[in-house]
Amino acid sequence: MSHNSFGHLLRVTTFGESHGPAIGCVIDGFPPGLEIAAGEIKAELERRATGRSRHTSQRREADDVQILSGVFEGRTTGTPIGLLIVNTDARSRDYEEIKRQFRPGHADYTYWKKYGVRDYRGGGRSSARETTMRVAAGALARKWLQQELGVSIQGWLAQLGPLRTDAVMNWDAIEDNPFFCPDPDRVPELEAFMDALRKSGDSVGARVNAVARGVPPGLGAPVYGKLDADLAAAMMSINAAKGVEIGAGFASVAQKGTEHRDEMTREGFLSNHAGGILGGISSGQDILVSTAFKPTSSLRLPARGLDIDGNEVVIVTKGRHDPCVGIRATPIVEAMLALVLMDHVLRHRAQMGGNVFET
Amino acid sequence: MSHNSFGHLLRVTTFGESHGPAIGCVIDGFPPGLEIAAGEIKAELERRATGRSRHTSQRREADDVQILSGVFEGRTTGTPIGLLIVNTDARSRDYEEIKRQFRPGHADYTYWKKYGVRDYRGGGRSSARETTMRVAAGALARKWLQQELGVSIQGWLAQLGPLRTDAVMNWDAIEDNPFFCPDPDRVPELEAFMDALRKSGDSVGARVNAVARGVPPGLGAPVYGKLDADLAAAMMSINAAKGVEIGAGFASVAQKGTEHRDEMTREGFLSNHAGGILGGISSGQDILVSTAFKPTSSLRLPARGLDIDGNEVVIVTKGRHDPCVGIRATPIVEAMLALVLMDHVLRHRAQMGGNVFET
Amino acid sequence: MSHNSFGHLLRVTTFGESHGPAIGCVIDGFPPGLEIAAGEIKAELERRATGRSRHTSQRREADDVQILSGVFEGRTTGTPIGLLIVNTDARSRDYEEIKRQFRPGHADYTYWKKYGVRDYRGGGRSSARETTMRVAAGALARKWLQQELGVSIQGWLAQLGPLRTDAVMNWDAIEDNPFFCPDPDRVPELEAFMDALRKSGDSVGARVNAVARGVPPGLGAPVYGKLDADLAAAMMSINAAKGVEIGAGFASVAQKGTEHRDEMTREGFLSNHAGGILGGISSGQDILVSTAFKPTSSLRLPARGLDIDGNEVVIVTKGRHDPCVGIRATPIVEAMLALVLMDHVLRHRAQMGGNVFET
Amino acid sequence: MSHNSFGHLLRVTTFGESHGPAIGCVIDGFPPGLEIAAGEIKAELERRATGRSRHTSQRREADDVQILSGVFEGRTTGTPIGLLIVNTDARSRDYEEIKRQFRPGHADYTYWKKYGVRDYRGGGRSSARETTMRVAAGALARKWLQQELGVSIQGWLAQLGPLRTDAVMNWDAIEDNPFFCPDPDRVPELEAFMDALRKSGDSVGARVNAVARGVPPGLGAPVYGKLDADLAAAMMSINAAKGVEIGAGFASVAQKGTEHRDEMTREGFLSNHAGGILGGISSGQDILVSTAFKPTSSLRLPARGLDIDGNEVVIVTKGRHDPCVGIRATPIVEAMLALVLMDHVLRHRAQMGGNVFET
Repeated sequence: MSHNSFGHLLRVTTFGESHGPAIGCVIDGFPPGLEIAAGEIKAELERRATGRSRHTSQRREADDVQILSGVFEGRTTGTPIGLLIVNTDARSRDYEEIKRQFRPGHADYTYWKKYGVRDYRGGGRSSARETTMRVAAGALARKWLQQELGVSIQGWLAQLGPLRTDAVMNWDAIEDNPFFCPDPDRVPELEAFMDALRKSGDSVGARVNAVARGVPPGLGAPVYGKLDADLAAAMMSINAAKGVEIGAGFASVAQKGTEHRDEMTREGFLSNHAGGILGGISSGQDILVSTAFKPTSSLRLPARGLDIDGNEVVIVTKGRHDPCVGIRATPIVEAMLALVLMDHVLRHRAQMGGNVFET
Repeated sequence: MSHNSFGHLLRVTTFGESHGPAIGCVIDGFPPGLEIAAGEIKAELERRATGRSRHTSQRREADDVQILSGVFEGRTTGTPIGLLIVNTDARSRDYEEIKRQFRPGHADYTYWKKYGVRDYRGGGRSSARETTMRVAAGALARKWLQQELGVSIQGWLAQLGPLRTDAVMNWDAIEDNPFFCPDPDRVPELEAFMDALRKSGDSVGARVNAVARGVPPGLGAPVYGKLDADLAAAMMSINAAKGVEIGAGFASVAQKGTEHRDEMTREGFLSNHAGGILGGISSGQDILVSTAFKPTSSLRLPARGLDIDGNEVVIVTKGRHDPCVGIRATPIVEAMLALVLMDHVLRHRAQMGGNVFET
Repeated sequence: MSHNSFGHLLRVTTFGESHGPAIGCVIDGFPPGLEIAAGEIKAELERRATGRSRHTSQRREADDVQILSGVFEGRTTGTPIGLLIVNTDARSRDYEEIKRQFRPGHADYTYWKKYGVRDYRGGGRSSARETTMRVAAGALARKWLQQELGVSIQGWLAQLGPLRTDAVMNWDAIEDNPFFCPDPDRVPELEAFMDALRKSGDSVGARVNAVARGVPPGLGAPVYGKLDADLAAAMMSINAAKGVEIGAGFASVAQKGTEHRDEMTREGFLSNHAGGILGGISSGQDILVSTAFKPTSSLRLPARGLDIDGNEVVIVTKGRHDPCVGIRATPIVEAMLALVLMDHVLRHRAQMGGNVFET
Repeated sequence: MSHNSFGHLLRVTTFGESHGPAIGCVIDGFPPGLEIAAGEIKAELERRATGRSRHTSQRREADDVQILSGVFEGRTTGTPIGLLIVNTDARSRDYEEIKRQFRPGHADYTYWKKYGVRDYRGGGRSSARETTMRVAAGALARKWLQQELGVSIQGWLAQLGPLRTDAVMNWDAIEDNPFFCPDPDRVPELEAFMDALRKSGDSVGARVNAVARGVPPGLGAPVYGKLDADLAAAMMSINAAKGVEIGAGFASVAQKGTEHRDEMTREGFLSNHAGGILGGISSGQDILVSTAFKPTSSLRLPARGLDIDGNEVVIVTKGRHDPCVGIRATPIVEAMLALVLMDHVLRHRAQMGGNVFET
């Protein structure tokens, strides 16, 4: 079952609410021997952190992650890795006003209808704060993939609202701006766009792309363990995600077969419309995945909504919210990509073996 | 694990190769008491069958499904339901030529790299023939959802290659043409397009949409058991799928928050950009999902490729192939939608209960 | 979920009722490359077959197993292996009389209370006929364990009713008598005991032991993936099982720590009270497991019982039943032991790796 | 996968080492609405706590459990419940001496062979300290079972080393002595026995029995989701467990069928040799389970063993250890029984339904 767990052999279980005492996760199935320090995890967390720039929420969490288990003398031991972050900057009073209201576009209504109860403070379990644990677990998976197989993962902002942002791909520029934009010349335009947006009180969506390079062929399995199916679930499980594409994605609808099918020569594939996956199994090409994030629903612009008694109310969300949640999504997308790939590496090793018993 | 199983509480495990003796599935966790006959399953299978029109593959399978277990005196018993279809029209000689070749855009290469062996006949396990079992299992799920909760499911062709086909939605017309096109006036154009395409030897992709109506609020679970995450995996696991959208999907990237968020009044939601899912949980609105299918890769037009010894070869695929696999995808998409929904109904009942022990 | 599936990475899903058209299974996750023929599986099935001697049920099933998928040109391919046996000697008329009765000691009553419906013919899903599929799947696992790791598995009858039968262990004799008794000198006594028992119309229980030799250290995982916990579930899932022991088992209750703990020297362990498992992980010693089977409940001697309307009835079971189901349990115990071990080999390879990507 | 998770729909994942910073667990799938306070969990923890009497280890942990998530305003919300206990009385220096030694009867050797690394302090992950989390999670399950279905669970010490302790069953006496012994007249004898044992430096095993009353018929599922199979795995997963019995257990081997099969009249079953489970499904009778625990292996009496370099060493374990681990096992057995039953209640509700969608 996968209510709050992700993955099969590399299995991440997260817990915690936005304004509860802490959030945490358990990473089970991780191989022993990886050198890891809390500081390395924190470095990844800072990439997604609120407060990175004026364009994201001003909630400031230290995100001091503690390693509670599974690491001994600086290395993973093969036992479950417990990670914990104590919540410090949780201003629950911001939410008093909406504790009886269903914010449009939020999970307030559906949690209420499902459970008959909800922790309304900051979205509770449905808050994007949960994604810190994805990034934390992903930090370990990324390092392991890099060390064991030379796999590298990079995400970027491909579209911000109406603005496409990756026509020029300058890989080195991605980490140098608060948008994860690969085209540094576009950054001033993005800043101006966001400033105007914030002033207007409205929000926009975003498209985040990611690539994994160096992935060996053979990851994935027919027919419900397909690598692309697991990637689709991984990306769609991120807060605000509304669409996922592999390779050419929806553009493949209008393609001809002669155009889409990636021909091969001895030098390798001549194109990569498949996004590195054929029949659900990696081909050795770059894995390409693209995810659509909807615009933030929490706005100070009033909206028509209901309260828990069924009364019509005008809802204004105060609190501290990102006008574009997609800006901070890049490290989350990378983390999910890493987790899926590492899970499939373990699955592949299980079935295909190796000389593990000879030592 | 989910190599060849799908779902959690309603769990479908399929087996079989395109040109092996038979294909089959086991449906586990199905509640007792549903009246079902093999003929009802067959009726669904005929909707996806090859040979339905000149626009799909001319392989003709009787698709006579046998119920091997789990049904007693015409009703499900709660024990696993075994379904089997014997393969009859499997011309393996068609594939002799390509047994040592990797067809571009196919799983030939990746299966070989993963397993070191492959059943090359008709694509073996990666053949779309596997989807008969999805449709068969989906037939039971659809009937159960309809009877228990009044949920109805309908898919349609939204785009064929470059042609958008659902600008006009005539629900009654969908089943009356071989394309599942909701606009009957477009059918002659589609037929002409397909005739020309077939003549050219090339292929195109398709977009298939589906809606589930009458879904109660509350299905789905945070945060890795989200209904949309499971739908994304379900659709992406279908052969040739390259993209999945829920509700507004990728269009939400360019939307403003004030536009996207679906406001509510006492009469209900004012729009459905969310596609019926908020925070991973159904809201009671229509569930809307859209899937992109790539163009068929098996073409008689020659392509550059490799053989299993690494030699460059020119590959021409004979056999009998659909010039647009998406045409037959509609019943498959519907089946996957039904299976995901029913699985989540069972999951919801598990956690939220009901008076099952009082009788 | 595990309603009708067993194992994690080597996953066996069975279906079928005693008197339905067929029984079958799907083996998922099996590595490619094992040479296997239907005849090899049938040989194992014959060891558990009814009709092996006058001391077991006279129902005669040919047990002609068909391999429906997952094997190509005589070798496993890595895709799911579908196995099927058509039921031929199913005399349902034998069961007409008891279709409205709950036989004491049987699952009739509990299936009825759970599902509100039951296939009463021959016990339906609860029949020991299901165990043919365990033995069939186990045949593949045994062969693979032997070839890959040199693991060998042997079971034997340790007790028949009041008679202990393994005070003398003659390994070569086990397969030479219908009881799997390791002491050939006891066989005439066992035959006389069974003849008298059959004449009396009553039944007895049995204890079946099994050993796995050559198991590498390291199989199993803390703390809910313990090898002994999985073995306990495996054995207790067999029809009529009521107890499971690992190593010294219940005798360890009265042991002193100085006696029980297995000391080590450079030559290895000095004893094996642990049964080859410490902390849930194999130690490299022989794995020892013992299972208790209750006496058959289906007797021609009348018993007080209820019918489905709640009336008191006197129940006499005709049909063809084993006076000691434990006699045929040895191959089933061996199969479950093999399936658990192979599953844990795959799990171990997943986490601990090997050079699978270097080729 | 179940390395460190237990259960399917009620799923408990534990983490933490004996001498690490903390131990904890995540309980996923728990229904909303149960009133629960940390104090209630702590009360259960104190029943298994070290330092309860002079007959158990003198390590004194406060076991102050924190509820980190999933409970809001005193009630469960349906989201994952995170529990944490900070380790306070961890004297790692006690273990310096044996950091390079494999203690006989311990998991030291097998962890080393599996992972190539181990947290040697206090047994690390293999320590019985992990069982605090089973008891904590079990506290919630017990309360829920009691409130929802009126199920009550009670365990007791049935045998201490060579002494049978439950010939007289005085239910009220069980909680009034440090042994969970149901016969208060035996307590002085047990105390004398333990005092002598402690003085001798040796240890003994124990048998712990448990009963669940008020369990509705219908829990469990054919054929690998049997209630008894899950109970067997649950009990065998507890540290030091070597055997499990349901109902008559191994005694059923020597029983006649006419004796074992539990006949029924309109007043109910006439006996309970089955232990409340028929065909893997509960019958409504008391569920009876018995577990064997081996004697403690950590002794100050010297033993022959190896160090990690393969040298023969004489091993003396200092530290603070229970001379009979089984004494503290009663609350753990009860917890596992509660967790299995509640998981199966949820599974039953999933398949059999109820009116959950009508509100």
